[in-house]
Amino acid sequence: MKHFTLLFLTLISVTALAQEKKIVTEKWHWDNQLKQDTTAGYAQVVKIDNVLYISGTVSTEITPEGITNLYRALERSLNTFGATFQNVVKENLYTTDIEAMKKHNAARKVFYKNNFPAATWVQVSRLYMPEAKLEVELIAHLPK
Amino acid sequence: MKHFTLLFLTLISVTALAQEKKIVTEKWHWDNQLKQDTTAGYAQVVKIDNVLYISGTVSTEITPEGITNLYRALERSLNTFGATFQNVVKENLYTTDIEAMKKHNAARKVFYKNNFPAATWVQVSRLYMPEAKLEVELIAHLPK
Amino acid sequence: MKHFTLLFLTLISVTALAQEKKIVTEKWHWDNQLKQDTTAGYAQVVKIDNVLYISGTVSTEITPEGITNLYRALERSLNTFGATFQNVVKENLYTTDIEAMKKHNAARKVFYKNNFPAATWVQVSRLYMPEAKLEVELIAHLPK
Repeated sequence: MKHFTLLFLTLISVTALAQEKKIVTEKWHWDNQLKQDTTAGYAQVVKIDNVLYISGTVSTEITPEGITNLYRALERSLNTFGATFQNVVKENLYTTDIEAMKKHNAARKVFYKNNFPAATWVQVSRLYMPEAKLEVELIAHLPK
Repeated sequence: MKHFTLLFLTLISVTALAQEKKIVTEKWHWDNQLKQDTTAGYAQVVKIDNVLYISGTVSTEITPEGITNLYRALERSLNTFGATFQNVVKENLYTTDIEAMKKHNAARKVFYKNNFPAATWVQVSRLYMPEAKLEVELIAHLPK
Repeated sequence: MKHFTLLFLTLISVTALAQEKKIVTEKWHWDNQLKQDTTAGYAQVVKIDNVLYISGTVSTEITPEGITNLYRALERSLNTFGATFQNVVKENLYTTDIEAMKKHNAARKVFYKNNFPAATWVQVSRLYMPEAKLEVELIAHLPK
């Protein structure tokens, strides 16, 4: 009997320890009630504490229209947790043609309303979809 | 009259809500009083809460001199908010020639004074400027 | 004598200021008592406040076995600070063959137990080791 009690108490402790380590995240994914894409295995937005991690959003065209649509999608991602581009602190931009992106940067800049984040842009070989040419991911902070 | 009061109170609430969502960042950008580059659309350093997001800093030469100059620029970025390389927790390095960077890593390592961050290095097709061969971005934390 | 006292007090203040800026990180590196790789100059895991920054972990094969081994290595990195894949909020995946990774994604997805992070995948030219084909880095949060 003593052994069972000990085993029981150990199980409670282990469970308590495991629960103590659980974090509380909130997610959002394009009108998807599951709040994530279970096929590719990612969520568009993950909120933890006061930080929003926003997955790469893509465009197949590096044109003013393509860039505008991509940043509108990011804006929608931000809005889901009450944020705007004014909350973005970091932008990572991956493209297959960095000169085209530089040429049409005005279409991106308008979204930041003259309040720009830290940013790194690199040209890569390919993105997730074969036809994608531009992908932008963000980190945004909400007020504490 | 009642309607005006209601409208007025609603406006106050909406304003309060919007302001509540504003974050307070501090920025720094290479002796630039605007504290950001409004042409490319980014800031060299964005401070939010106790975190510094530092934009990719570049070198056109993957030589001990080129690497030293790049890390000196990062050091200057860190120093603006009282941080040093001892505050760096994450380094992302993008280069067009990873073997050259590995060969001259000693020039980088000296800056960390034997206290290294988590790091990921990848070789990419191209960087922002056609002549750039190395770009390093950092995340640093200040004491809370 | 007065000057010495002043100098002494100044030295104390400077030291206090410097110490005030020190952050307290914890690290872990593959059974390495130094808790970092001083040759390449990085640590596998850096813990700061309640955040874990996990360096890119690699595989030379984009097969179910290669992917499984890579994510097991990441799992071990997470476990060192009591975290699991349930604590991961952001994943960045770099590969030399994104189609191969998409094909064998099931081997990755099982680790997340249907609770996926924000994620960005890009295809790059090369990774740190010439033979590496896949590299995954993570950000995980512990409960505050």
